[in-house]
Amino acid sequence: MKGFFQLISSRKFTALFDSFSELEAEMIPLEDGLGRFPSQPLTAPEQLPPFSRSTMDGYAVRARDSFGCSESEPALLEIIGEISMGSSGQKFSLKNGQAMAIWTGGELPQNADAVVMVEYTNNLDENTIEVIKPVAPGENVIQAGEEIEQGGVVLEKGRRLRPQELGLLAGLGITELEVFRKPVVGIISTGDELVPVAAKPGSGQIRDINSTTLSSLVLESGGIPVSLGIIKDDFATMLDASKRAIASPVDILLLSGGSSVGKRDFTLAVFEALEGAKILAHGVAIRPGKPTILAQKGNCALFGLPGHVASAMVVYYLFVRHLMLRFTGAEDCHLRSVLAQTGEQIPSVIGREDYVRVRLTTRSGELPEAYPVYGKSGLLKPLIAADGLLKIDRDSEGVDQGEATEVFLLP
Amino acid sequence: MKGFFQLISSRKFTALFDSFSELEAEMIPLEDGLGRFPSQPLTAPEQLPPFSRSTMDGYAVRARDSFGCSESEPALLEIIGEISMGSSGQKFSLKNGQAMAIWTGGELPQNADAVVMVEYTNNLDENTIEVIKPVAPGENVIQAGEEIEQGGVVLEKGRRLRPQELGLLAGLGITELEVFRKPVVGIISTGDELVPVAAKPGSGQIRDINSTTLSSLVLESGGIPVSLGIIKDDFATMLDASKRAIASPVDILLLSGGSSVGKRDFTLAVFEALEGAKILAHGVAIRPGKPTILAQKGNCALFGLPGHVASAMVVYYLFVRHLMLRFTGAEDCHLRSVLAQTGEQIPSVIGREDYVRVRLTTRSGELPEAYPVYGKSGLLKPLIAADGLLKIDRDSEGVDQGEATEVFLLP
Repeated sequence: MKGFFQLISSRKFTALFDSFSELEAEMIPLEDGLGRFPSQPLTAPEQLPPFSRSTMDGYAVRARDSFGCSESEPALLEIIGEISMGSSGQKFSLKNGQAMAIWTGGELPQNADAVVMVEYTNNLDENTIEVIKPVAPGENVIQAGEEIEQGGVVLEKGRRLRPQELGLLAGLGITELEVFRKPVVGIISTGDELVPVAAKPGSGQIRDINSTTLSSLVLESGGIPVSLGIIKDDFATMLDASKRAIASPVDILLLSGGSSVGKRDFTLAVFEALEGAKILAHGVAIRPGKPTILAQKGNCALFGLPGHVASAMVVYYLFVRHLMLRFTGAEDCHLRSVLAQTGEQIPSVIGREDYVRVRLTTRSGELPEAYPVYGKSGLLKPLIAADGLLKIDRDSEGVDQGEATEVFLLP
Repeated sequence: MKGFFQLISSRKFTALFDSFSELEAEMIPLEDGLGRFPSQPLTAPEQLPPFSRSTMDGYAVRARDSFGCSESEPALLEIIGEISMGSSGQKFSLKNGQAMAIWTGGELPQNADAVVMVEYTNNLDENTIEVIKPVAPGENVIQAGEEIEQGGVVLEKGRRLRPQELGLLAGLGITELEVFRKPVVGIISTGDELVPVAAKPGSGQIRDINSTTLSSLVLESGGIPVSLGIIKDDFATMLDASKRAIASPVDILLLSGGSSVGKRDFTLAVFEALEGAKILAHGVAIRPGKPTILAQKGNCALFGLPGHVASAMVVYYLFVRHLMLRFTGAEDCHLRSVLAQTGEQIPSVIGREDYVRVRLTTRSGELPEAYPVYGKSGLLKPLIAADGLLKIDRDSEGVDQGEATEVFLLP
């Protein structure tokens, strides 16, 4: 034994991320924007839509010319023409009692302030319609600038770009935009027993599972995984590999295995030996995931992850993913959570937060039920069966059957 | 007016997808597997782990040698050596009263069936330890084949591949796998008023928003968007463009705009005019999204989407995305939903399903509250403010304030 953990709460662990800064911004084309985060607020260079448009096929009118009309007393309007799609409506002007045929998306003529749906009109002759239902000013019209005014805020910093946000940018003619660059995450697997996935393990050897799992996790969170291979479990090799990874450079380095306090756990010593690096935490009061290390060198975060895959995944979802999102300025860095009802009693221990793998059964109109999936933390099987992580607070001895509890959804 | 809609329920609309077949399978490398769907069940070519491993640093023992021991009456064991990481443990064999030093992940020697954690031992001399806490057979050990037996089912058809599933494949040495290919989705925007995003609109013109929005939606759902540009709103142009799109080929064609029953709505006629195509639906009893067309030509699905962007997005999420997932054999094709409590009364109309855009406010330990975001369906703004779609059933006149209701989460 080399020492003891100095356990801190998950909240304190996350607060340590305040000592890291957001990454730099980069320009990207609009079509690459999905899931990225704007690095600064963006204002509209022009109004959208650029003109007042009809939302229906029908007739552009002065609304007051329709007031009081009905099926028994229709309003008679003179048709002075048709506004072709994609042509100027504003070159026409309506006088009292006049109307123009218009299509969905067409530009209203001057003095028109509403559109009567074609369903509520009858053609009397080529130049005359009767309107059988009055329209209010603004009815069936999207006003110029109603989507956004010139100078209005289009995007806020840190708000994830979804199809609708990208659509708005398209409408404004914004073909490229500034977002935070993706975090680069270096992944090193340590262990004398590990062989690459493509190799045939010999006696006492096993294939490297963590590199594939962690790379996929990083991809899922919007980062760029850089798999730096398998290295031997000794201080000098790990120090050298860490130095090279940091210089490559990476924003986050994940070293899995070796983060505990045993004789063969070198990660803490390696991070301590890196010039200019500072240990921020060794041990966090969660289960699984206790033997987690966080160190900082410049703006690079060094994580020592537990070797057991279930523990590494929980630490990844709670902390690594959180920091990745912080690096990209995201306003919300937590996994999506839902309220669920526990299907059975789940015991816990006071003094640590538990993240219990659970399977959710959906029930229409009711809370989903969460059933724990027990299993050794060295196994993937329970994670494969799980839909989420049920959180049990530090000051709780467990949750009763039927209790409503927060479950973080696995992406 | 060219006719009327033949409205069908959303359930009947979705049932029409039964007439389409799953796409072909393709081989991909393991590292590209995230989010894909296996096209057939996969069984384990070997067991995992390949040998019984320690999950702790400590001593491999015969559990019965520790039975009955305690701090006051420790069991004395003879240390016959250490199992180096990555070397064979099985070349050693324990006799009564013997133990071997072992590390996390190390292979157990013959006759050992448990591991005593180093914390529960004291070294008396170089060759002797005392054990102060008994272990049960199997304790601190992952058995050979405990993750998966040879021939066990590793992956089921249609189950989305997540980091944990890919980790299991890595452990089994599976470097490539068979998945359904991604659906190719052609996107055509129709409208004489539309100009490309990079262009400056003239009078009565507006930039094409739907191509960007739909491409991003397709990307998000795991498809391959193919933007086929903007075409004029006339029958011959649309027919020609549709023929070329289908021949390119695509699995799904999205034509936005022109799906209603007005004079300038050509989509239905265009789909009818395609040789070998069959109209499956024209009109669905949902709001927004009523003027939706589904046609089939071979295994290609042709969608006429409403021109208003909010309607197009709802139709996309309910139907297009669903079919894309069906094409890839996914076992669940629905958007993730949560139970939420309505923040205010939301009226609806009997005879149609409503999908109300809502903003969700999270409340720790309680159901989220859903507030409707009202706004014209031609605007993106309400969708940008929204987190989900609250479903109001066909036979309901609305939901009361405080009612628990299903909300589909926007991805």
